[in-house]
Amino acid sequence: MSWNTFGRVLRFTTWGESHGPALGAVLDGCPPGLALSEDHIQPFMDARKPGQSKYTTQRKEPDTVRVLSGVFEGKTTGTPISLMIENVDQRSKDYSEVAKAYRPGHADYAYDAKYGFRDYRGGGRSSARETAARVAAGAVARVIMPEVTITAYVSQIGDDTIDPANIDFAEISNNPFFCPDPVAAKRWEKLVDDARKAGSSLGAVVECVATGVPAGWGAPVYAKLDADLAGGMMSINAVKGVEIGDGFGAARLSGEQNADPMRSGANGPEFEANHAGGIAGGISTGQPVVCRVAFKPTSSILTPVDTISSSGENTQIQTKGRHDPCVGIRGTPVVEAMMALILADHKMLHRAQCG
Amino acid sequence: MSWNTFGRVLRFTTWGESHGPALGAVLDGCPPGLALSEDHIQPFMDARKPGQSKYTTQRKEPDTVRVLSGVFEGKTTGTPISLMIENVDQRSKDYSEVAKAYRPGHADYAYDAKYGFRDYRGGGRSSARETAARVAAGAVARVIMPEVTITAYVSQIGDDTIDPANIDFAEISNNPFFCPDPVAAKRWEKLVDDARKAGSSLGAVVECVATGVPAGWGAPVYAKLDADLAGGMMSINAVKGVEIGDGFGAARLSGEQNADPMRSGANGPEFEANHAGGIAGGISTGQPVVCRVAFKPTSSILTPVDTISSSGENTQIQTKGRHDPCVGIRGTPVVEAMMALILADHKMLHRAQCG
Amino acid sequence: MSWNTFGRVLRFTTWGESHGPALGAVLDGCPPGLALSEDHIQPFMDARKPGQSKYTTQRKEPDTVRVLSGVFEGKTTGTPISLMIENVDQRSKDYSEVAKAYRPGHADYAYDAKYGFRDYRGGGRSSARETAARVAAGAVARVIMPEVTITAYVSQIGDDTIDPANIDFAEISNNPFFCPDPVAAKRWEKLVDDARKAGSSLGAVVECVATGVPAGWGAPVYAKLDADLAGGMMSINAVKGVEIGDGFGAARLSGEQNADPMRSGANGPEFEANHAGGIAGGISTGQPVVCRVAFKPTSSILTPVDTISSSGENTQIQTKGRHDPCVGIRGTPVVEAMMALILADHKMLHRAQCG
Amino acid sequence: MSWNTFGRVLRFTTWGESHGPALGAVLDGCPPGLALSEDHIQPFMDARKPGQSKYTTQRKEPDTVRVLSGVFEGKTTGTPISLMIENVDQRSKDYSEVAKAYRPGHADYAYDAKYGFRDYRGGGRSSARETAARVAAGAVARVIMPEVTITAYVSQIGDDTIDPANIDFAEISNNPFFCPDPVAAKRWEKLVDDARKAGSSLGAVVECVATGVPAGWGAPVYAKLDADLAGGMMSINAVKGVEIGDGFGAARLSGEQNADPMRSGANGPEFEANHAGGIAGGISTGQPVVCRVAFKPTSSILTPVDTISSSGENTQIQTKGRHDPCVGIRGTPVVEAMMALILADHKMLHRAQCG
Repeated sequence: MSWNTFGRVLRFTTWGESHGPALGAVLDGCPPGLALSEDHIQPFMDARKPGQSKYTTQRKEPDTVRVLSGVFEGKTTGTPISLMIENVDQRSKDYSEVAKAYRPGHADYAYDAKYGFRDYRGGGRSSARETAARVAAGAVARVIMPEVTITAYVSQIGDDTIDPANIDFAEISNNPFFCPDPVAAKRWEKLVDDARKAGSSLGAVVECVATGVPAGWGAPVYAKLDADLAGGMMSINAVKGVEIGDGFGAARLSGEQNADPMRSGANGPEFEANHAGGIAGGISTGQPVVCRVAFKPTSSILTPVDTISSSGENTQIQTKGRHDPCVGIRGTPVVEAMMALILADHKMLHRAQCG
Repeated sequence: MSWNTFGRVLRFTTWGESHGPALGAVLDGCPPGLALSEDHIQPFMDARKPGQSKYTTQRKEPDTVRVLSGVFEGKTTGTPISLMIENVDQRSKDYSEVAKAYRPGHADYAYDAKYGFRDYRGGGRSSARETAARVAAGAVARVIMPEVTITAYVSQIGDDTIDPANIDFAEISNNPFFCPDPVAAKRWEKLVDDARKAGSSLGAVVECVATGVPAGWGAPVYAKLDADLAGGMMSINAVKGVEIGDGFGAARLSGEQNADPMRSGANGPEFEANHAGGIAGGISTGQPVVCRVAFKPTSSILTPVDTISSSGENTQIQTKGRHDPCVGIRGTPVVEAMMALILADHKMLHRAQCG
Repeated sequence: MSWNTFGRVLRFTTWGESHGPALGAVLDGCPPGLALSEDHIQPFMDARKPGQSKYTTQRKEPDTVRVLSGVFEGKTTGTPISLMIENVDQRSKDYSEVAKAYRPGHADYAYDAKYGFRDYRGGGRSSARETAARVAAGAVARVIMPEVTITAYVSQIGDDTIDPANIDFAEISNNPFFCPDPVAAKRWEKLVDDARKAGSSLGAVVECVATGVPAGWGAPVYAKLDADLAGGMMSINAVKGVEIGDGFGAARLSGEQNADPMRSGANGPEFEANHAGGIAGGISTGQPVVCRVAFKPTSSILTPVDTISSSGENTQIQTKGRHDPCVGIRGTPVVEAMMALILADHKMLHRAQCG
Repeated sequence: MSWNTFGRVLRFTTWGESHGPALGAVLDGCPPGLALSEDHIQPFMDARKPGQSKYTTQRKEPDTVRVLSGVFEGKTTGTPISLMIENVDQRSKDYSEVAKAYRPGHADYAYDAKYGFRDYRGGGRSSARETAARVAAGAVARVIMPEVTITAYVSQIGDDTIDPANIDFAEISNNPFFCPDPVAAKRWEKLVDDARKAGSSLGAVVECVATGVPAGWGAPVYAKLDADLAGGMMSINAVKGVEIGDGFGAARLSGEQNADPMRSGANGPEFEANHAGGIAGGISTGQPVVCRVAFKPTSSILTPVDTISSSGENTQIQTKGRHDPCVGIRGTPVVEAMMALILADHKMLHRAQCG
């Protein structure tokens, strides 16, 4: 598999740098005959785009997506779908300092070590701008898989977690945090604003639930559904951990506590619990697929940090300009998009082998 | 990528069921001219094999590996290396009950839903026996990458964690738990034995550290080193979570706390911390690569659990015969093997693009 | 895609050297629930194996195939199918001379240039023994695709071609040449025997026809059915050319002559000709798929040829021992196997995208 | 591998329909640090574009390529290179008739059978417009591999072949046929013009030679260099046959005639002949790589042909508007581009495994 292509049967390739003229995705393998237009995609872009609130980054991009191929008379043709998003609001001057020094925690040093040089403006290819292309591709994946509903939300910012008893999915769009717990959302206004004013940043955890996934998706051993979710989520900028079901919590349980007993039901088995997060042996069980993604705090902060320059001398770096106090917030639509892309891919993969 | 092939440049394909005549791996892409024989591989098999102590499963397999191709006059030829391990101690009679009912938490139901039927003996392809093939392939990966040292150990069983202050890698082989903390190892003797006698099981966390990895391995965006580690580790039986560096702990930190400041050093930058776990932007930084893997408690326990039969009726299931009270213990060499395979693959991938 | 794995959805990986203990194939992606045993495979091995007649190579291999995984209670499980064939009749002493010099036209020099050294015995991995593994895998492909009938035959040896008017598929198994024209078969007895006695060799052309292929298989632009056939056939030892339909003959025709006009029929269109060989725009049209494969004369001949030694000095080489006067003859089952594997792969690929 | 992605290490994905707003290619895996701009690419586009002479199609496209990513300060960054070409001169009205009937020999019927419907304008995705994207990608491949020189030319139109004794590469750009034989070029003026006026078409053969390829490129068994060439060339529109070296001619030779004897030379072996076309056992030998590609006569001709309508009724079709009397002519830069892409890919693949 290529470095910039993801997927097995339904594949997408993304391209584009933060400060280049545009970025995009080519989605290949989409079934023919599905209704598709920019109208199916733009709403997901709008949920993700920067400049939405004072809590997220201040860059203002319309993130308008164009469909350049693969659609005819409003339906997918089965040929590659090229999606393009033009960059409008690149402020190259804000990044002049980083050309000469490495921002710790970012990919700057690693990119230079690997490639010999890098497009330093806004992080170049390492920028989270790339995720705009994923969100566009993810919108198409939903069209392929209407039977599945995917919902992602922030379940934790810093040390502060939601209360599962308060979860109401309808609340997710009612606050700037994709938070399903209105009580927590109120606390987070202050929490995140304080961080922003201090020029600091916070980590977060995003939880994603997919319902309507039938049993049987996922292909052992190396195309397991949970393995593909882990890899896909870990590829998102700033992600440092991925869990399925109880995840690291399962390590603390006994076999009896972790069991998901089954009972006979009208439409197949009914499960008495879902510690497994909807996946067993790498294959979906028909239960909700539950995945949790940990985002580290953004490394772009406004306080000086010790680093070295590109010529190897000690220096300090202090990011000026726009910064995102909590990238996990805008990572939420990206997590949803990856869930959609991976599930749609597995729907098709299962059909390929098992009809 | 196929369902049973893993890797990008250095690829391995595994085959074989728990109770079939044999299992194996075909490793493709190995550089030519490297000294290789069964002697390079068997020690890793011996560290993994069942029947080692009373704390692990009671199945006795010699796990003798044969090299059937890809080596001539003691050196790799660059052609595929076929490794085969014969199954000797399959006790089919122990599994007669599970032919008719699904063991909760196992892949039984999911396999039937996907394929229509399954080889139920010992879990068939879903059995952890498959990991023997991975360990064999991982031994070859080490030969490709002698500059890297990989050490995995159990850092937690159930609720009980090691004390980082006590870590001594030399202790890992001194106890049946791959535990680097001799004080914790003593506590674990009772902890695991109690679980075994009760017919129960415990979860675990395995930590893996790779040193000697230069900066530059990993290829954004979809062949990031951490993404491949996440996917590879999640594909191991019973794994439910993967972290890199601080992982889910990073979500709790502020940007200042999570920073890895850099200073100038004799041989490139020196880092003042390693919250990132050796990977930034998906590329290795030259720091130790640190990965943590969460294993759920084995679902094969000796107490009855509610389930359904393959014809859909309510029943109970009670696994008899051999059972493993803590699969994380024997998952340790498997985690090491995956780390080796993924790093060796990335060494070659980096060379392909950047020379 | 790896160097030793072929296919997109239905994939097989082969391994094994000519004089190693065994060779084999791992076939991955096979649909579950199909009846499969050695009885489905062995007949195809028997049609291919050496030592069949005085016209082919004198090595006597039983080519007994064993199925080591992926089958349970007589049906495919959907897990990888490992096929193994043991080498029995390796005569290493016949090849002692070639350890020190390169056989012109063989891969000897190229392998040394690439890998630095090679398993010289019998050509090592470059030997046509590898095709035994393909034939085994091809037998499984037929089980996946019973609606398609594949027939390959030799249509030309040296300058001598069959007469299309005499073609009778029932004749193919009545002579040692897989020849459907009994008149030509008679001529070929002398033609090939003369070459064998002279220690020389002849080239050949193998034609392969697949009927029962519905319209719609093949995926533009880079998974076109004809492109996959071309690549798959060219990968067979000694192949130097591949044609579809009229092939190079089409270059000589005008647009009117080359047209395949269509008329309305009871079950879809009826075609008035098949210059296209059953494939248009890379997709099957429902017409018979016709492919032609050119084999060069074997480079292993018993007359001395100028060459260089592995240390670079001028010398001559004269292959002793067994030699095949016309490899195209035994290439026939291999061409059939590749046609089966590629068509079955495309059956599944089409299903993945278009249902 | 995906249907619209080609390559193993150096990969490109093309997208775009004949009458869509644009088409393009995303090239992934390019080494970093190479000088690249539109100036490296545009000359190859200009050699290919329609409307060049009265002998080729009358559509006038500037084929201006834009580089949208993967380049910074004039050098490749190692990130994906997105190339876009806007369609300017689509005349949709010329194709109204084909919306309702299938053009025999084209992909129309096959596309409908596969996808259920198609973008019929100009052939949609099946149009040779797609090859513009390949030519752009091929220009980048040359930058990766400056040590190799690639020359393609038309060696035959219809029945009329060049005289090898007259071959002068400098002549290729002196006539509208990419013909290296000035005597043949004169004959072809009349030959092709007669066909154009008659509304008919001719087939052609394009020969391609690559010099400077060292020994060792190509990876047996399923990434053989000749197999990849065969597949890549066969994927070009209207191609029906591919040969390496003597190709189908080798089938007529004896082993003695087909031999490429070797003698000791100053810089490695010197070969006394090149029947093998520079590839043995799937690996380059250091000799010129010689490949020959057969193009059928264009199916778009101005005389009526029997066909069926999309509703299955008998009708006739008569293409109006622009038509290309000999697609092989403009296939020449496409063959060169594929040779460049495949060789550059193999250069990197060899480096991955063998350093």
